Amino acid sequence: MSDVTESSRLELLEERLNRVEDELAITRLIASYGPFVDGGDAEAVAGMWTEDGVYDVDEGHMAGRSQLAAMVRSRAHQGWIAGGCAHFLGPAHVTLHGDTAVAVCHSLMVINNGGEFGQDAAFGVRRATAHHFELVRAEEGWRVARRTSRVLDGRPEAPALLVRGVTGQPA
Amino acid sequence: MSDVTESSRLELLEERLNRVEDELAITRLIASYGPFVDGGDAEAVAGMWTEDGVYDVDEGHMAGRSQLAAMVRSRAHQGWIAGGCAHFLGPAHVTLHGDTAVAVCHSLMVINNGGEFGQDAAFGVRRATAHHFELVRAEEGWRVARRTSRVLDGRPEAPALLVRGVTGQPA
Amino acid sequence: MSDVTESSRLELLEERLNRVEDELAITRLIASYGPFVDGGDAEAVAGMWTEDGVYDVDEGHMAGRSQLAAMVRSRAHQGWIAGGCAHFLGPAHVTLHGDTAVAVCHSLMVINNGGEFGQDAAFGVRRATAHHFELVRAEEGWRVARRTSRVLDGRPEAPALLVRGVTGQPA
Repeated sequence: MSDVTESSRLELLEERLNRVEDELAITRLIASYGPFVDGGDAEAVAGMWTEDGVYDVDEGHMAGRSQLAAMVRSRAHQGWIAGGCAHFLGPAHVTLHGDTAVAVCHSLMVINNGGEFGQDAAFGVRRATAHHFELVRAEEGWRVARRTSRVLDGRPEAPALLVRGVTGQPA
Repeated sequence: MSDVTESSRLELLEERLNRVEDELAITRLIASYGPFVDGGDAEAVAGMWTEDGVYDVDEGHMAGRSQLAAMVRSRAHQGWIAGGCAHFLGPAHVTLHGDTAVAVCHSLMVINNGGEFGQDAAFGVRRATAHHFELVRAEEGWRVARRTSRVLDGRPEAPALLVRGVTGQPA
Repeated sequence: MSDVTESSRLELLEERLNRVEDELAITRLIASYGPFVDGGDAEAVAGMWTEDGVYDVDEGHMAGRSQLAAMVRSRAHQGWIAGGCAHFLGPAHVTLHGDTAVAVCHSLMVINNGGEFGQDAAFGVRRATAHHFELVRAEEGWRVARRTSRVLDGRPEAPALLVRGVTGQPA
């Protein structure tokens, strides 16, 4: 009897800990985007997505890892890095649905305006963006199946994306 | 004897996991503020607080969920959303005190300056703010009992609020 | 037999929970930097590091807690606080290596430009910075042994630091 109880307590602990680890794995995955993309590691950025993962952003639409890696290697992106750039993502809010999940966060793309270092406001905010992530549990861990990103410039899709993300709904 | 030991190990695990889940629940709650408020979901913003919860910010004082929802529905707030706006909160630092907790974070309120999209520095930082949260465990989960927010413009309350928050003291 | 199984399940749970708690302790430590430094708490900032911990930043090199505390008490830093300042760190990505760990995040140093409060863009971004943390488990908890920080103004060390941080390598 006591063994049954202890076994069921163990099982419950395992389930709860699974959820905690899933949430932390997803926040860690999303927290790796900024360092990888500002560090120019094209393969690592692409590897955050599933093989056929999609990154649907107002400035472009990428499908599959080779298009994601090409974005990082593009002249435009390399120019941001060479000039000084931070893709600064906020803390992700995660909703778990078993083997899939939805996450949401804001980001700021901050760029060096080329002013002399040490002068006030040498950096500027190019974009504030809403990000919605649909994630799947893959063999190698959690991966992004679809990321939908819209600039917060007043277009109605961006606020709508934030609400769908934080309530765990698909984009 | 071994059963006793295993039972006490189970108990300790349960207590530790409770604390981890509390901390994650609070960081998730705070991470939902930006998406809900920039998404214009007045009921969801208000629902983050207890029924009679307080939001004491230098620009206004709200008490109770109806005043919180009214802030989100106000012409001023709807204007921020329509123009393009990010309430970008940083990672919350949480101190648990059993059924109450204190959390602290910075935020940046970033707004679209109306410049043409794609031009450098189309967005500006309207406010950098210190936020102090006093939270309580309610039946429906953790809720904000009092949030105290002061702009970091040199007024001494704002730095003091950060230190009280990160050391787990009331505002 | 069942006892052996339950004991090994307990052991595995304990190991997994240890890792979760380590990760949360480190993210909490890093999330305390902004509130302590913007709050001017020199002893608390210094106490985040080991006794002989190093903070190697492009604007200066500090070794040991007394130099760290002196930075917070310096005329320059006190001037930032008096004028209005946010050291806004993003969510840290943590890689655990037993009793040591590596973490990485971006930060924005946002300052009040002295414009009248309520006017648009009263604040500016002085720096966007890459931060790499090497941490050790001390008796009193996790502490920073070495923090290496470089401004993201195009100098190649800064992107390199982000990649080394997110892949768990030393600076």
